[in-house]
Amino acid sequence: MKTETTIQGLTASLSPARAAKKMIGFVPTMGNLHEGHLTLVREAKKICDVVVVSIFVNPTQFGVGEDFDSYPRTLEQDSRLLADVGCDIIFAPSVEQMYGSQPRLTNISVGQITDDLCGKSRPGHFDGVAVVVTKLFNIVQPDYAFFGQKDYQQLAVIRQLVQDLNIPLEVIGVPIVRAQDGLALSSRNGYLTEEQRATAPKIYQLLKQAEQDLHEGKALSAVLATISDQLTQAGFVVDYVEARQPNLQPIEQFTQNLVLFVAAKLGSTRLIDNLQVEYKT
Amino acid sequence: MKTETTIQGLTASLSPARAAKKMIGFVPTMGNLHEGHLTLVREAKKICDVVVVSIFVNPTQFGVGEDFDSYPRTLEQDSRLLADVGCDIIFAPSVEQMYGSQPRLTNISVGQITDDLCGKSRPGHFDGVAVVVTKLFNIVQPDYAFFGQKDYQQLAVIRQLVQDLNIPLEVIGVPIVRAQDGLALSSRNGYLTEEQRATAPKIYQLLKQAEQDLHEGKALSAVLATISDQLTQAGFVVDYVEARQPNLQPIEQFTQNLVLFVAAKLGSTRLIDNLQVEYKT
Repeated sequence: MKTETTIQGLTASLSPARAAKKMIGFVPTMGNLHEGHLTLVREAKKICDVVVVSIFVNPTQFGVGEDFDSYPRTLEQDSRLLADVGCDIIFAPSVEQMYGSQPRLTNISVGQITDDLCGKSRPGHFDGVAVVVTKLFNIVQPDYAFFGQKDYQQLAVIRQLVQDLNIPLEVIGVPIVRAQDGLALSSRNGYLTEEQRATAPKIYQLLKQAEQDLHEGKALSAVLATISDQLTQAGFVVDYVEARQPNLQPIEQFTQNLVLFVAAKLGSTRLIDNLQVEYKT
Repeated sequence: MKTETTIQGLTASLSPARAAKKMIGFVPTMGNLHEGHLTLVREAKKICDVVVVSIFVNPTQFGVGEDFDSYPRTLEQDSRLLADVGCDIIFAPSVEQMYGSQPRLTNISVGQITDDLCGKSRPGHFDGVAVVVTKLFNIVQPDYAFFGQKDYQQLAVIRQLVQDLNIPLEVIGVPIVRAQDGLALSSRNGYLTEEQRATAPKIYQLLKQAEQDLHEGKALSAVLATISDQLTQAGFVVDYVEARQPNLQPIEQFTQNLVLFVAAKLGSTRLIDNLQVEYKT
């Protein structure tokens, strides 16, 4: 496994694989890797000859007052984990390497599907994601790119971006990896106190209960209200509890497949989760 | 020479060249080709093995009330001209092929350098250019892309876009091609009446006079005012007469190389031109 910190170095490292027409897989991350990330790499290994994992805590997708400075940087540990799952190249650039010294004047925004859910409480976040992902795609030029479904809205934004801009690669969404108690794995779980960590699985429990309630015919609006109430009672500060069609378009009633979305804070830690609920006729 | 109208067809046509690591040159156009475009193709032929010319009148870069509907479509004639200069592949997609049937949600905007000059009187124009050029770059995946300096601001926008998004190609700017009487070649010259066509070279004459005046020490502001006055007297409706540093940053006095910019209407036809003026110490 190689680690490259410059675009030039990465390009050189990938050059033989590209010349040999090998399939290149790409897993963009912000590091502090957990089983969720490693699952993305394992999926990539299944269909690609060479797997590149980027580790870059991207400043432009963090808002004012968000956790850019405190976001955990654990490159050594990440490297060991990535070697174990067969990653071929780590791309770990500096902010200077990614954004250069000249001011960036170009912005990319994906409209409509970023207007609400996480887009509402994190203004500019998805623009930052769209720009850095486009840059990384242009640098790595992969055949396949892998993203976790935990960041469902982000995955939808990237699929839209790739379609709208004819970016020549295939996006693969990979199911959420959960702890034994159901908590969706996330680097931000590390911020939780022991007590908060014990409370956090409540999100998934309530999503699963909601799925059952929907299948038993309970009204969607009532189901959403219940999740929200129960989270508040458990000590969360709810950001949103919403249902959407799989393409993120609004949905009023459970008349087709839908996705339940939750974002809620425990202390200063913001957790998100989602559950795809199948409509059975 | 092949003509492809679909992305799939173009990809297939380019596949052998790409596999053989041939240098691919790309000249994006809106068709109705003149010597200016053909010069771009000739320049491309000099350094590339395969030259692709796209012909696509891009609706998203035309504003309300602009000439999208009346913009000349002359594919047969264009094809003959391109065959003569050694173009290898024409890519002439439909609007449906380029934009699909789903709504496009992604926008790209290049800030600051699009705030004035043509950006001011054509709101949204450069966003439309940025999106379609990014799409075409992703479809063609060229090593080099060629743009005329007549659209100087557009060229600056594209250079910025390529740098900011790490698009893996080199942008080549090619000097303006002029008619014998100095008029910068443009498809829109075809809209001019005989009388307007006789007046139109006044723009270049005034730019050349301005260059001389600057070299003789006349103040920049006075030189710009003279161009504007003389154009108005000649029957133009002036949109702007401006000077900029080569990177489009403002400039107050002639203390370094600069570019003079003119946009003016004759009847309903909007003409643009520019002249790079060298500062001699």
